[in-house]
Amino acid sequence: MKDDNERYKYEQLALDLRRLIEAGTYHPGDRLPSLRAMSQQERVSMSTVMQAYYLLEAEGWIEAQSQSGFYVCDMLPRKLPEPEISNPAPDPTEVSVWDLTMMIMRDYADSDLMRLGIAAPNPAMTAAPRLNRLSASIGRKLEAENSRYKLLAGCDDLRIQIAQHAVRSGCHLSPADILITSGCQEAVSLSLRAVCGPGDIVAVESPCNFDILQCLEVLGLHALEIPMHPRDGISLDALRAAIGQQPVRACVAISNFSNPVGSCMPDENKQALVELLAERDIPLIEIDIFGEIYFGEQRPLVAKAFDRKGLVLLCSSFSKTLWPGGAVGWVVPGQFKTQVERLKYTSNIATPLVPQHALAEFMALGKYDPHLRRIRREYARCMTSLTQAVGRHFPPGIRLTRPEGGFLLWIQLPAPTDALSVYRHARESGIAIAPGSIFSVGGLYRDFIRLNAANWTPEMEGAVRRLGEIIAEEVGG
Amino acid sequence: MKDDNERYKYEQLALDLRRLIEAGTYHPGDRLPSLRAMSQQERVSMSTVMQAYYLLEAEGWIEAQSQSGFYVCDMLPRKLPEPEISNPAPDPTEVSVWDLTMMIMRDYADSDLMRLGIAAPNPAMTAAPRLNRLSASIGRKLEAENSRYKLLAGCDDLRIQIAQHAVRSGCHLSPADILITSGCQEAVSLSLRAVCGPGDIVAVESPCNFDILQCLEVLGLHALEIPMHPRDGISLDALRAAIGQQPVRACVAISNFSNPVGSCMPDENKQALVELLAERDIPLIEIDIFGEIYFGEQRPLVAKAFDRKGLVLLCSSFSKTLWPGGAVGWVVPGQFKTQVERLKYTSNIATPLVPQHALAEFMALGKYDPHLRRIRREYARCMTSLTQAVGRHFPPGIRLTRPEGGFLLWIQLPAPTDALSVYRHARESGIAIAPGSIFSVGGLYRDFIRLNAANWTPEMEGAVRRLGEIIAEEVGG
Repeated sequence: MKDDNERYKYEQLALDLRRLIEAGTYHPGDRLPSLRAMSQQERVSMSTVMQAYYLLEAEGWIEAQSQSGFYVCDMLPRKLPEPEISNPAPDPTEVSVWDLTMMIMRDYADSDLMRLGIAAPNPAMTAAPRLNRLSASIGRKLEAENSRYKLLAGCDDLRIQIAQHAVRSGCHLSPADILITSGCQEAVSLSLRAVCGPGDIVAVESPCNFDILQCLEVLGLHALEIPMHPRDGISLDALRAAIGQQPVRACVAISNFSNPVGSCMPDENKQALVELLAERDIPLIEIDIFGEIYFGEQRPLVAKAFDRKGLVLLCSSFSKTLWPGGAVGWVVPGQFKTQVERLKYTSNIATPLVPQHALAEFMALGKYDPHLRRIRREYARCMTSLTQAVGRHFPPGIRLTRPEGGFLLWIQLPAPTDALSVYRHARESGIAIAPGSIFSVGGLYRDFIRLNAANWTPEMEGAVRRLGEIIAEEVGG
Repeated sequence: MKDDNERYKYEQLALDLRRLIEAGTYHPGDRLPSLRAMSQQERVSMSTVMQAYYLLEAEGWIEAQSQSGFYVCDMLPRKLPEPEISNPAPDPTEVSVWDLTMMIMRDYADSDLMRLGIAAPNPAMTAAPRLNRLSASIGRKLEAENSRYKLLAGCDDLRIQIAQHAVRSGCHLSPADILITSGCQEAVSLSLRAVCGPGDIVAVESPCNFDILQCLEVLGLHALEIPMHPRDGISLDALRAAIGQQPVRACVAISNFSNPVGSCMPDENKQALVELLAERDIPLIEIDIFGEIYFGEQRPLVAKAFDRKGLVLLCSSFSKTLWPGGAVGWVVPGQFKTQVERLKYTSNIATPLVPQHALAEFMALGKYDPHLRRIRREYARCMTSLTQAVGRHFPPGIRLTRPEGGFLLWIQLPAPTDALSVYRHARESGIAIAPGSIFSVGGLYRDFIRLNAANWTPEMEGAVRRLGEIIAEEVGG
């Protein structure tokens, strides 16, 4: 426990210093305050300062010069340029990305590949072992009763925990507002089915997570790709123009740490988004699976917090934070509650109870917050390390995002690099990545790749170097 | 083990004798062979014969007359008349049975009610405790890897076991033919979505399981109710006439021990059904969740066994036999494999892996067959006991089915009894039943109820007596 506290302190200090460097408070070449000065200034021990400095050095932010102290490095992580605002075609498009998606899924099942592809969390940063043990003991307790899994809306204890936790994202929910689903994808799929029918137009972020694009395609919906800013997310001006011109039936957005871009809509943009859509009674399907993995001071709010008309269907799950294998998600369907319930019941009756009870117990034991604090620190470090490795090994001319949460990096390669060709060569070298074209229905992002930082270890440096070589060959060729 | 063998012997003997009585080999009033004679004739011990006789006596088939031996009773179970062939309207109907369905579901969650309502198995006749223990140890083993749940089609080991087991129902499947789903309802829902679109007409059995009716309603499909025989299932003549007159897009049938009727299509009918539909390329969605719970000598085949064109989508699950809480089912989608896979992926990515591994291990350990043998005997006994109790306590004029498998009884009350009123009064007396109107979209079966025999204990005699009183009051009133 003492170690944990100490670690928390120096990691926090390192985080603060990283911010100051990024903000330009300390410039490349500047000397950081001495150990003693920093210790007095921050009211921490010299040992804490030393550990923070070592951490920043290991991450490549600062370097020690013998007898003289620590200096901010010249080549900083995250200082590479960001991608520009995306520019999709202004017409809705029929979707067809199934084969690419299945290719990426197969990579994921191949354990010999270095996993920079699919957006799964690091298994070591889930609570799966603990939740499996809880499931075992709950399974024993429920033995006589566990055929009674047919509680349509889900287990009350878990819905209470989710409602309590939702306060921090700005939502005041009753447990009855929440329907437990088999993961977030089911929440999104049920929501789309509740508010749209075949042929309808749905506004989506561009680039857009391919599971959403798949879902639109299967439901016979047309995707209208809306430009997005690499840090602020979906462009409200573009969306306003789009809904003025097209009969948009719904909008889907990952408000916090989008996939693949990693953008986080400022809270005022979320409010504006909700109000803009509410003017025309257009439902917003909001996805918030990464919202808890923020690197900053405060949990970003959800758009649902500004929902006055019950038009926002908030979808989330524990798959990125706690337990991918449990496949427990939820939807807060607002005014579409009855439709979503009926769709859930007819789809698979109800979500199994044992994993729900395990999660409820885990949260009731107060284990969720410490777990989140740990993974926020870890993923922040993973992102920094991967960003830095990309900066070191990728050829000049790349652009990359600077997400303040989640674990995904979105990288634009120097034109006219074919990311699908990079994907294929990387695969031959034992590295799985996600090619950009999978994130668009309009054939965009052929020069982008998405990397997953979640499984970062120093050994992955070699994989990033190899990726850099492959990209350099593509650029040259 | 010795006890088990002995029990198996006398139960088998009792079963054989029950058949002989039902077949009329022994008539009411006949004296059964003496213990010694039967022992020699059947090559079993006198003690086995005695236990078989006591069992039959307890079940009301025979009675002892002092010093004189055992005689076949006058009032036999199962000798009540069967319902007639159903006679639904010949037009497709829009579906609306949601509120009734939710009422029945709420009853199920109320543990104070005597559970004769929903078609759930007896928890004591599942393998849930064992499967929960297996899950716990598998969860530990998969710990590092259990985020890798995204195997779309399901775990190979389980698909191999299902394919091996399917041989007995007449199917030669490769594991790749099978897609694991979150229960049978999901298999049916995905199948319907794969082969139909809103507005299409689907031929269903009449009466029809309300989960199927719900699913049709939510998908905007029209149910065309086809008459069925209480023992032989869907009427082929009626179906032939219907598809000649209406543009039927698919047919849904529970081929073995249907719900609620308990009918089992003769295997030659299954073949004729498949051929009839194949002439017009109409897909058959076949449900076989009760097929393993047969009381006779042989597992009835599935219609899929006669499928030459890949038009049959076979749907099943382990929920009735092994593990309702695991919610693991499967579909063999034939020529619709790609559509079903895409629908599954976009609905919830994949079914969680741990329960699948637990089931695969359970089956690989050879535990499935002994379990099935045990529950077949137990459910046969439950059905006999409930049938007999109904015969003793319900007023004259009722008709009831004689299912050769499963655990559901379908009972026609003397006209013009309102089963919904019986349902309400039964509920006030702490007894949950399923009113017949829930099994039709055309307002049929208002004088029917469905009872679940699975949880039969001698203490339920009182509940059946109370039900009989309620029905008698309704008939009188």
